[in-house]
Parts: sequence; structure tokens; C-alpha cells
Amino acid sequence: MKDLLIKDVLLNNSRTDIYIDDTGRIAEIGHLKGDAATVIEGRGDIAVPGLVNTHTHAAMSLMRGYADDMPLQEWLTTKIWPLEAHLTGEDVYHGTRLACLEMIRSGTIAFNDMYFFMEEAARAIDGMGMKAVLAYGFINLSDPDKQEEEIKKTEEFCQAVKAMNNPRIAAAVGPHAVYTVSQEGLQWLAGYAREENIGIHVHLSETEKEVADCRSQTGRRPPELLDLCGCLTPRTVAAHCCWLDRSECALLGARGVHVSHNPVSNMKLAVNRAMPYHWLKEGGVNVSLGTDGCASNNNLDLFEEMKFAALLQKFFWNSQTLLTAPEVLGMATTAGARALSLGAGEIAVGAPADIVLIDRAAPCNTPLHNRESNLVYACHGDAVKTVVCNGKVLMLERTVPGEEKILAEAARAAEDLVRRAEDAGDL
Amino acid sequence: MKDLLIKDVLLNNSRTDIYIDDTGRIAEIGHLKGDAATVIEGRGDIAVPGLVNTHTHAAMSLMRGYADDMPLQEWLTTKIWPLEAHLTGEDVYHGTRLACLEMIRSGTIAFNDMYFFMEEAARAIDGMGMKAVLAYGFINLSDPDKQEEEIKKTEEFCQAVKAMNNPRIAAAVGPHAVYTVSQEGLQWLAGYAREENIGIHVHLSETEKEVADCRSQTGRRPPELLDLCGCLTPRTVAAHCCWLDRSECALLGARGVHVSHNPVSNMKLAVNRAMPYHWLKEGGVNVSLGTDGCASNNNLDLFEEMKFAALLQKFFWNSQTLLTAPEVLGMATTAGARALSLGAGEIAVGAPADIVLIDRAAPCNTPLHNRESNLVYACHGDAVKTVVCNGKVLMLERTVPGEEKILAEAARAAEDLVRRAEDAGDL
Repeated sequence: MKDLLIKDVLLNNSRTDIYIDDTGRIAEIGHLKGDAATVIEGRGDIAVPGLVNTHTHAAMSLMRGYADDMPLQEWLTTKIWPLEAHLTGEDVYHGTRLACLEMIRSGTIAFNDMYFFMEEAARAIDGMGMKAVLAYGFINLSDPDKQEEEIKKTEEFCQAVKAMNNPRIAAAVGPHAVYTVSQEGLQWLAGYAREENIGIHVHLSETEKEVADCRSQTGRRPPELLDLCGCLTPRTVAAHCCWLDRSECALLGARGVHVSHNPVSNMKLAVNRAMPYHWLKEGGVNVSLGTDGCASNNNLDLFEEMKFAALLQKFFWNSQTLLTAPEVLGMATTAGARALSLGAGEIAVGAPADIVLIDRAAPCNTPLHNRESNLVYACHGDAVKTVVCNGKVLMLERTVPGEEKILAEAARAAEDLVRRAEDAGDL
Repeated sequence: MKDLLIKDVLLNNSRTDIYIDDTGRIAEIGHLKGDAATVIEGRGDIAVPGLVNTHTHAAMSLMRGYADDMPLQEWLTTKIWPLEAHLTGEDVYHGTRLACLEMIRSGTIAFNDMYFFMEEAARAIDGMGMKAVLAYGFINLSDPDKQEEEIKKTEEFCQAVKAMNNPRIAAAVGPHAVYTVSQEGLQWLAGYAREENIGIHVHLSETEKEVADCRSQTGRRPPELLDLCGCLTPRTVAAHCCWLDRSECALLGARGVHVSHNPVSNMKLAVNRAMPYHWLKEGGVNVSLGTDGCASNNNLDLFEEMKFAALLQKFFWNSQTLLTAPEVLGMATTAGARALSLGAGEIAVGAPADIVLIDRAAPCNTPLHNRESNLVYACHGDAVKTVVCNGKVLMLERTVPGEEKILAEAARAAEDLVRRAEDAGDL
């Protein structure tokens, strides 16, 4: 690894240079005279910390647009599950590469993923240069055999990640949700995460039905149940959280849980309630942002997600001032980094060089009355020009090396997947 | 004007060529052998009819990001109105050029604008090659002097548009809303539109307050009042329509009124209710799509607006199947064209050549299981590569001639505008 100098960027409100040493850390910020192995001319482009997507199922990019506008249960049982039944490790590799490409092109440098064949996801991310926390999606329902199998897969995957010894890639446990994992399963996962000192990635209170079913089956609402099983910790990322009540927001705050807000998915799947941001804020909860998988979004652009987040809060909770542009930009950057234990998520001396440069001359930044407003309300991910992750340039002037091959291979994998499922009579 | 051949595009579900004759109309569609003065290689890119934005205040692009996340009344009185008080015709010219550039870059070929200094807006649009229906925003409150002035401005502007004799540009009357125009004013505007055989562009039932105030002041709800004054016609475009009840949707259908749905603006300004699409559909109303002005959006990307529309309907009305991708694509294309009397808004022999080519190889179109789903749920306007309006190429491979100058001049106009308002002590 060699050093890198980024010249003349707009950082907060002033023009500056950023020097990144050969360990991938930011060594100096200011008007610098020196040189470096690589020099990027910023020409006044806007520098922000790399964006962090805290809830994805990356390989579902292969199912982008395969089925939409359907009742949830029918969509799952006649389209998504039949496709997933034919999914191979190779598919997950290509789907994850496509997802990484899309995330890099829209300024995301790290993500929190939950899916299957996660060794193949790890291999894809290793090659793409991003950071990720990866969890095998644990689903045992109440089947003891299935539970043994899921425990084995979780352990194997976590050990495989350890063996990779890639500082950009970490494992987490992935209890899918209270309606797909038994209490015994939840307890085992919490214990294993504690032993291994790794994170927990879980879906929480996404729909009203999830809350009602959990109450009728266990006598408790989902957060209380997760807490009882030891799953609410400072290393837990809970996705969705649409149907939390005020005391549950306080509980998450007390336990140090991080929330991943997924407004696009919540609106598309008509969950009928927006995450109560004001109560989470009141409870001191770290709220970050996620896109969810491509099948329920259908892209991975965190700039779009920022706008949806800011607008959905205002609309649903009936306040023109709720969730401001600076706050939502913080959700997509610093809050995401904290949620995934990636540091402060700031452009500062000593921090890992996770830096995104945004085109200052794009129409969405014209005029430039307010940088944060433009980034949240006017720009999309295509305004991102250059992406640096851990000091390595992943995209330069909108070019990601190997892009055409990644797209072609993913397109082929997606077509083959559908064909296999059709040939088997499953679609 | 010379002829144009667009080769090898994906139109509906097949690859084809499109030949446009020297009158700007589509003359042939199929596998064509001939040549033309200009040839565009589509290479399988997706062809859709040019998008139509049916509610804008284009020159407000100069105020993009100037103020957000504020209570509506404070935002208007301390930020927007003080800026507008210093607005010049030259500002409107540069702001409208910026808006046109942004719309062209995101696949929009026509728009329905309401603002001030509209002769300057017309001059900008003339030069940019787009189509537009332009209305001077008529606001008389209950001041008789102001009414005379507004009538004069409306007449002068409509005659100026007639004198331009540009087939791409039409005038309309622009009664701002029931809360800013007297009944006498509304009646005059309806009569003048009838005489001149031009359209009517009006804000309708955007907020609950508008409906309540109208009832308490006139004893009628806004649609009934507009109807009484003759403003509900088959040439009327009514923007917002969030707070219509079911019988009002039926009334709009019976009168042949076109609706412009503006979901981003409605969410950002927290109007607290989504336009009742299901009732409008039931009433046979032509529902189109608009971005509103940049101050309350803050961009003019109809691809983004399509996604917001499809998701907001699902979320607010609690239905995973409401407003499908093909329906919303129709809102942004054919419905918009009908609303502005631009023909059918289809790519068909004999129709004006208003054609947009979308990058088939973009990540948002990978995989390509479903064209319409990708366009609505995955792509943004940056996936648009080439834009043809009335047979003239406005953007080719993402290049719009003169782009840098347009951006620089708009940025300068915006800065000067703020400076003038500040120097006068108004901000």
C-alpha cells in the first residue's frame, strides 16, 4: 500500500487537502505542500465520510425487479422463496459483487449484511475492497434438527471469517427475527456472540403482525423477548423498528442497541408506521440507515435513503422540522460507523481514510447555498465521483475497475437462477 | 431541421429502430435499412416516451437548499418571500435554464410551470428546446388594485406567448389557489382561459388548513368553489389534491380535470395525507406527476418522483399492490402528455418524437428481469443517456450543449439574489 494525497476538497466549510499515509489512515489535514504516490485533484469537490449501510441482504441484487407490487405473503411464497431455494454460493458471490459495485458507485464504503452462503459474500467483499460485517441468517423456527444445522453453519462461518484475517471483514450472528428463531436459538446466538466478541444483526418490530403474533405466542412484545434472551447489547444492530412504542425506544437506549432505519423498504412493503425517530432520539439510541435488500427497495443508494428518511419522518409524524438534513447525513455516516464498530466515521487525523468526494459542479449542487441540504434533498449517489476506503481508491472519477465484468457476470447469474427455478417447475 | 435515425433500442419488449423525419415526427418503427442525417446507436438501451413534469416553479431552482426543515409559515415569511421580493427577470431566465438542464438530464421533455417574470421563463425554454405550458401565478387576495394588475400581467403574458409563435410553448392562466385568489379573480381567469382556448394551472387542496379555511370563509370546500367559478375544466391541471374526499375525486373526473401528484413536496412539507389515488382512479381522473419547485423538493428528477409516488401510495393507504410500476410510469409519461395537451405521449408512428433512452447497462438495470420495475424502483434520472424532443437531440450520451455556462450563470444569479436580499436587510 502506498500513500495518497487528496487536494483541494471542501471539508465542512473550508477548502483543504487530506494526506493519507501508507497504513490507510488520515495523517494530515490542511494546506499541504508535499507529494504522494497517488494524487487526486479535488477541485473543490465536497468531501464527506464514507457512507455506511447498516442493513442489507446484498446478494438479493440478483432479484432486483423480479417481482413487485404484490401482497407480501404471495410475493415471498411464489417468487422470492422459490428463487432462493435454487440459490448457489456462486450466485451469492456474483450478487454480492453487483451490490458492492452499486454501493461504491453511490458512496457507500461499508455495510452490514445478513444472508446465506456468507463465505462467498466474504470472498466478494474481500475482492471489492469494501468493509463489511457479515451474518449468516439463522432461521430455526421450532425444529431441533434445523437448530443444530443453523448453529453449525453460524459457527463455521464465524470461524471462516476469523481465518480470513481481513481487517475489513468481521462476522456477526444473525438471528433473523423473533418469528423465525426460537427462544433457545436466540439465547444460543446471544451467548455465542458474547464468547466470540462479535455483533448481532436482527430484524425487529418491522410489522404490526410481528408484534401481535409475538404477544399472542409468548406473552411478550419483540424487544422484551429479545432482551430476555440476551440479544439487546451495545453490539446489536436492530433493523426496521417501525412498531416500537416509547418505552421500547427507552429500553433500546438503555441497552446501547443501534437501530437501522429502512424507510424505502418500509414504505414499499406498506408496514403502515414509520420508525419513531423522536422517541429513539429521546432514548439516546444511535440511529443509522440501511437500504434493506434489493428485492424490497430496489437499489442500494444511501443518498436516496437519506431523502426518504428525512421526508418520511416529517410526513408520518406530521412535523416539518423533524429529522433535519445534518441529522440524516450523520445517520448515514457517523451513526453507521458506530453501529458497525468502525470508529467515529469522521474525516479526522488518525481515522481510517474512508472518504467520498461529491461533484461540486453537479446540477444538484447548483447553487451551493447549503452543502448538507443538497446532499440529502437534491443529490443521488451518481453525484459521487471518487470513493476511498481504508486509504484505497475504490472509484476514481466514476470509474470502478472491472465494472463491466461484474455487471455481465451478475446479469448471467440472475438469468440462470430464474431459469433453474423455472425448469424445476418452482416458478 | 434534419432527419434522425435511432438504431437498436428496446421498445416495450423488442429491439427495434426508430426513424424521425425532418418535421420532428416519428415516421417509421421497425428493423430499418435506411440512413439519416443523424444516427444514434442505441445498443439495446431502453426507449420510453419523454417524461412530462406537470407542476413546477422552475426558477425556484435558484433557491435550492436555501432553507429547509423549517415550519412552513416561518420558511415562507423569513426565507422564500424575502428572496422572491428581490427576484428579477434575469434571475428567472437563469433559474429556468438551470431547471431545464436538470430536467433534460433526468429525461423530462415538457413541463407545466407557474411563476413570475414568465416572459423570461419562455425565453429560457425557447433556447433549451423543451416543451412547456407557462402560467403567470395570479395572486390578488381581495385587493381590487392588485386584481387589475394581475389581470393585466396575465393578458400581457398570454399575448406575448402567442406572439412568440413557438409550437413548443403554450400559455395557461395560473390562479394560484383558493386562498390567494378571490372568487371574482377565479371567474375572470376561467373566462379568459375559455376565450383564449388555453389551460388552467392551479394548486388544489394541498393542506388540511386550506380546506378548513375555505370552508369557514366561503362555506364551500376548495373543489366546489373552483367549480362554481368555472375553473374545473378538461384543460385544468390541479396540483397536489392531497385532501380530496371521494365525492371530490368523482367531481374532478366528471369535469375532466387532470391532477398533478407531487409526493416529494407533500412529504417534505408534512401535509399529512397522501393524494387518494384509488378514488381518483375510480373517478376516471387522469393523474400525472410533478416535482413542484426546487425549494420544496429539492430536485426536478421525475424518476425519483415516480418511486416516491409508488411507495407513498402503498405506505399511506396501506396496500402493497396500490400504484404499480407500469401505472406510475404511465403517470410520468402518457398522463402528463394528456394533461398538457401534447398528444398521447407514446412512441408511435405519427407522434412527435419525444423519446428518452435509458442506459441498459447501468447497475440499476442489472439484472433486467423487468424494465418497468427497474425504471421506477431502481433507477434515477442519471440512467438517462439521450433525450430527443420534437425530433431534436437535447442530450446525447449525457452531454447537453452549453451545460457549464448554464450552471455557472445560475450559480452566480443565486448568489447575487441572496446578496441583494441581505444587503437590503430582508434576510
